[in-house]
Amino acid sequence: MIETPYLLFLGDAPDQLAAKVAQGIKDWRPENAVGQFRMDGCKADLGLKDMDLVEAREAGAKTLVIGVANRGGMISQDWKKVLVMALEEGFDLASGLHNLLRDEPDLVAVAEACGRKLHDVRIPSVKYPIANGVKRKGKRCLAVGTDCSVGKMYTALAMDAEMRERGMKSTFRATGQTGILITGDGVPLDAVIADFMAGSIEWLTPDNDEDHWDLIEGQGSLFHISYSGVTLALVHGGQPDALVLCHEPTRAHMRGLPGYQLPSLEAVRDTALALARVGNPDCQVIGVSVNTQHMSEEEARAYLAKVEVDMGLPATDPFRFGAGKLVDALAAV
Amino acid sequence: MIETPYLLFLGDAPDQLAAKVAQGIKDWRPENAVGQFRMDGCKADLGLKDMDLVEAREAGAKTLVIGVANRGGMISQDWKKVLVMALEEGFDLASGLHNLLRDEPDLVAVAEACGRKLHDVRIPSVKYPIANGVKRKGKRCLAVGTDCSVGKMYTALAMDAEMRERGMKSTFRATGQTGILITGDGVPLDAVIADFMAGSIEWLTPDNDEDHWDLIEGQGSLFHISYSGVTLALVHGGQPDALVLCHEPTRAHMRGLPGYQLPSLEAVRDTALALARVGNPDCQVIGVSVNTQHMSEEEARAYLAKVEVDMGLPATDPFRFGAGKLVDALAAV
Repeated sequence: MIETPYLLFLGDAPDQLAAKVAQGIKDWRPENAVGQFRMDGCKADLGLKDMDLVEAREAGAKTLVIGVANRGGMISQDWKKVLVMALEEGFDLASGLHNLLRDEPDLVAVAEACGRKLHDVRIPSVKYPIANGVKRKGKRCLAVGTDCSVGKMYTALAMDAEMRERGMKSTFRATGQTGILITGDGVPLDAVIADFMAGSIEWLTPDNDEDHWDLIEGQGSLFHISYSGVTLALVHGGQPDALVLCHEPTRAHMRGLPGYQLPSLEAVRDTALALARVGNPDCQVIGVSVNTQHMSEEEARAYLAKVEVDMGLPATDPFRFGAGKLVDALAAV
Repeated sequence: MIETPYLLFLGDAPDQLAAKVAQGIKDWRPENAVGQFRMDGCKADLGLKDMDLVEAREAGAKTLVIGVANRGGMISQDWKKVLVMALEEGFDLASGLHNLLRDEPDLVAVAEACGRKLHDVRIPSVKYPIANGVKRKGKRCLAVGTDCSVGKMYTALAMDAEMRERGMKSTFRATGQTGILITGDGVPLDAVIADFMAGSIEWLTPDNDEDHWDLIEGQGSLFHISYSGVTLALVHGGQPDALVLCHEPTRAHMRGLPGYQLPSLEAVRDTALALARVGNPDCQVIGVSVNTQHMSEEEARAYLAKVEVDMGLPATDPFRFGAGKLVDALAAV
């Protein structure tokens, strides 16, 4: 287990979205987020107190969490100086990047010399099976998006929190490094070997009480050509009973893919539902979750009202207006 | 890249089917198959000249390819003596077995001492990029199937052979271990890390002449819940201009998934085409390849005629009746 609380390292994040790992921890486990560490040129800000390593140490932080992701998941050379100093100050390090802390000889050497730990949460720690498609007991809900980074994890976390508050049985099932850092376990799906992707999701969402819901964190998008295979493994390994469509209306193009337009909500609904019904013929789309962070409240409410009319489904921004509508719809399944 | 030509090692194959990897090499790249090496009790015969190691060396063979699969994919202790001698004679070794050459300490030690290479084609040897979706020059055709193991590799190889015979520019692009051993390179897609699947296929099918076709070997099926994510990575990483639908009409259920019915050809056409057009809006379905090995010739011809009427597409069994119809359709794209 990773020692808490954390100092959240934002590095030289080029924008706020690049710090979504840190943002997720701060939003969902604020008690674990003592402060933020930003380097020169950092364009992200969590609204936490900026701390240097000594201040954070004095505030009780035990682990420096790399809360920023860059394309390809590299450990930047620019970060190394801070990471080495953090180990020397007595912090453990935790990271969900593709490139592993344990593969950096300097970090390994310093960690060993200082008696500190390197946590790579991206590494699968389980030998997953190949998916067998056998129907499991209990119910599952999967968030599917028009694009990457549109709020699928937030949607599942917000629904899970609302369901627990109502006394419903639910579990948030993490499939990415942020979710794993927040909850302490899960499947780092984008690091799983191709043949075992769907099987890892069956493993993550086993038999449960008939009235229990797994809220499965989505990844990528069926319409994002870089990661769509990962998304389809969630749709087929999760065999969801319910899908929630997730969307960010102000995106000019697919994330990281200039020239690729976002699909319509209707296209995502039709494609995801047809594919989901291969694994679970009873699957339904139960609602729409809209990330309205770049809209005024008036714009957001007008957009949500329009989506409800156009799609004939409840629509909300669960982070801004609560997940109640989505949980109502799930309870009716 | 595996050095060619090969000496095909059939070991103690219990029957002809066990040597299907070697058979594939001999059928599709006869120029790579200098001879066969059979141990006592071998029940497979490719009709190639039987050679010992010295003869094969003199005939120009550079690599001994394990062209036989035994139960469990193990490297038999009975084979070890031959493999060690082959290294000492100056051969590299290549294998697509689950158990890796590199995990056998004796083979590793001898290979190192002799300066020879061990090729485990099941494991990626390249650090693949994340797919960027940038349009490449040249054209690409992908085989997509109703199920696993319906003849996607043979379809692509047969089309490639027909195109070369016609003087068209084409390259078969292997995505599985048999295909990689046949051609000497490719991507072992089912062993690639999830995030890099689509990128590995972009890497495999780079810019080329405008009139050049990559014939991409398909894997899995969009309707096979265990492997569908792998298939979608091919559809989106390959960004194909043309799809060939592959089908085996006598299959009672999806391979390895009792209770899961095969989709119709129409369902595969509609689903695959809609998803392919995300990456390449001009993608077309150009024909149907039917594996008729379990049908009489009369049944096969009747079935193909019905498919042509129902689908409005050329249909053939390329292994039984030739790939001409499919290549005609491709040439018209």
